[in-house]
Amino acid sequence: MTDASTPPSAEDPDTVHDLRTPALVVDRAIYQRNKATMDAVRPGLELRPHVKAFKSTGMAADLAADGHTGFCAATPKEIEGLVAAGLTDDLLLANQTLDAARLGRLSDQAQITVAIDSDETLAAAVAGGVRNVLIDVEVGMPRCGCDVSEAGPLADKARAAGLEVRGVMGYEGHLMMVTEREKKEYLVEKSMKQLLAAHEAVGGEIVSGGGTGTYDINTWITELQAGSYLLLDTDYARLGQPFETSLTVVATVISVSPKGWAVVDAGLKAFGVDHGNPTWPDGEVMFCADEHTSLVIDENSPTLSVGDRVSLVPAHVDPTVARHEQFWITEGDTVVDKWDIDLRHW
Amino acid sequence: MTDASTPPSAEDPDTVHDLRTPALVVDRAIYQRNKATMDAVRPGLELRPHVKAFKSTGMAADLAADGHTGFCAATPKEIEGLVAAGLTDDLLLANQTLDAARLGRLSDQAQITVAIDSDETLAAAVAGGVRNVLIDVEVGMPRCGCDVSEAGPLADKARAAGLEVRGVMGYEGHLMMVTEREKKEYLVEKSMKQLLAAHEAVGGEIVSGGGTGTYDINTWITELQAGSYLLLDTDYARLGQPFETSLTVVATVISVSPKGWAVVDAGLKAFGVDHGNPTWPDGEVMFCADEHTSLVIDENSPTLSVGDRVSLVPAHVDPTVARHEQFWITEGDTVVDKWDIDLRHW
Repeated sequence: MTDASTPPSAEDPDTVHDLRTPALVVDRAIYQRNKATMDAVRPGLELRPHVKAFKSTGMAADLAADGHTGFCAATPKEIEGLVAAGLTDDLLLANQTLDAARLGRLSDQAQITVAIDSDETLAAAVAGGVRNVLIDVEVGMPRCGCDVSEAGPLADKARAAGLEVRGVMGYEGHLMMVTEREKKEYLVEKSMKQLLAAHEAVGGEIVSGGGTGTYDINTWITELQAGSYLLLDTDYARLGQPFETSLTVVATVISVSPKGWAVVDAGLKAFGVDHGNPTWPDGEVMFCADEHTSLVIDENSPTLSVGDRVSLVPAHVDPTVARHEQFWITEGDTVVDKWDIDLRHW
Repeated sequence: MTDASTPPSAEDPDTVHDLRTPALVVDRAIYQRNKATMDAVRPGLELRPHVKAFKSTGMAADLAADGHTGFCAATPKEIEGLVAAGLTDDLLLANQTLDAARLGRLSDQAQITVAIDSDETLAAAVAGGVRNVLIDVEVGMPRCGCDVSEAGPLADKARAAGLEVRGVMGYEGHLMMVTEREKKEYLVEKSMKQLLAAHEAVGGEIVSGGGTGTYDINTWITELQAGSYLLLDTDYARLGQPFETSLTVVATVISVSPKGWAVVDAGLKAFGVDHGNPTWPDGEVMFCADEHTSLVIDENSPTLSVGDRVSLVPAHVDPTVARHEQFWITEGDTVVDKWDIDLRHW
């Protein structure tokens, strides 16, 4: 990234050792393998990458180059950022919003579709100048989505209000982490039959749903909403799917105690810990504090010295990514690219 | 914040109802009471506010106006930001760093002191042009700090290398959440006697330590490092100290299910949940997802409608604040000020 006359710096690092820590690092080879694994099952528009998992227009552009030119998002800010980056083909806010005017005002620049599940979110879409909607249907998880029985009437009201109703969406998020495949197939089918019943009443060409955890099981949808598979995390890795963790937080050892621990400079502000502490592949994590993680140093771990770098694997990718400003893309120890995490906040 | 001819907007809100959500809101009256409670015990330079808890030069300037003109920080970035904001009186990096050159280069603009606990961090301070250090001593928590027995020799080496050794610091963080006062007094004294033994060997005028949880118990230090008392959180509130939670995350109801829940637009990306989920004072939180929190709606809760706003209280202030771009300061429902959270990242 620099010519030979320029020494490496935190702004323009040559290798992982030059990075200012904590730093979010993506192993490009693993990331590419994850993409290939997904693309074999969900090519092109059968996959609608969910930007909430990576919040970066750089990564979104890389997926678009693979033929995944439609995206879904969890916040209006994410949609605004995709449009600003020229990724305008087919953007879905897979969430309810009352702030629909932020999206309506982009209608001439991009094809934007918004999920609705109530009269209020329908009214907001109409008032905000949104042109296309999906009916969001609750399929078993206690979060957004209308009842199956309400989907048809809501679609009718939307069409009467002049909106294009493109179909339905429903997220079987409560089933992502089911580990037994047979049980998962049974439960996903049951959940998706509710979505298909709603689709029957709603019409439109789109049946959108799923996620990384059901990417090869949910065969009832026309498009998969998935994002975690790209970077993965230790929670998803438990499922034993053919995706690998490509994301780590690189940290620097800043203190070593002869009593049996070492301290690195990445803590609660560098990780989303709702699924647990990060994992240190070479040993045990003792605990995380705001800007520190203490590691157990014993006969089962390597010896660490102040200044050493260690890589920790997050337990939950989405809230971890949202704490950082950029991904550093690496091949081995070499930093080959930087993608800004430019879709954060609201 | 606007004249009468300008409608309120998310950029320049008049009231809490105009805020783009999720939004971090500080109740000014409570914040002022928290400051007064602390100032009665730790006036002026006896308090060294810890900016890691709020990461805002706006709030730091407000504390400086109260006479707390010395600050401590957990990251070089926080020190850089304080200097850029003109808060240069007496800045302590209460943490080890190998990136000391970032602070050394500010030595002519501000009085900067860096904690050291090893030969390596001493060498980094010298090489980086840092002029002042504290010897960081481990006083019971398995994190940074040298052994008591190493403090004197490290101070000698620092002085031999031309550094000014201003004293010692030691954080009894493992005792913050002890709830029984008598037990806490006993344990803090035991911990601080280690720090005083190190100070005996090190010399210098500063004995720095403590935190919100020991603000009126730790009488052995010359200055208290505390930040959480300003905004508080539900974890600290359990202690029954005379501080109150002044910080909430305001969220919008975006979906309501007749099956007994409502969904708001603030989730794991708006909170630090290492101490648990946020609290909804009017009812129960069901669960948090990336950009959602589902609330239980039953006979014990109010009825909520789409578009309503609710306030959730974070369980841990520091990692919550680090997820947001600004504090909105309020009096009742009126937004009276905005402080940027400008000391985030690394």
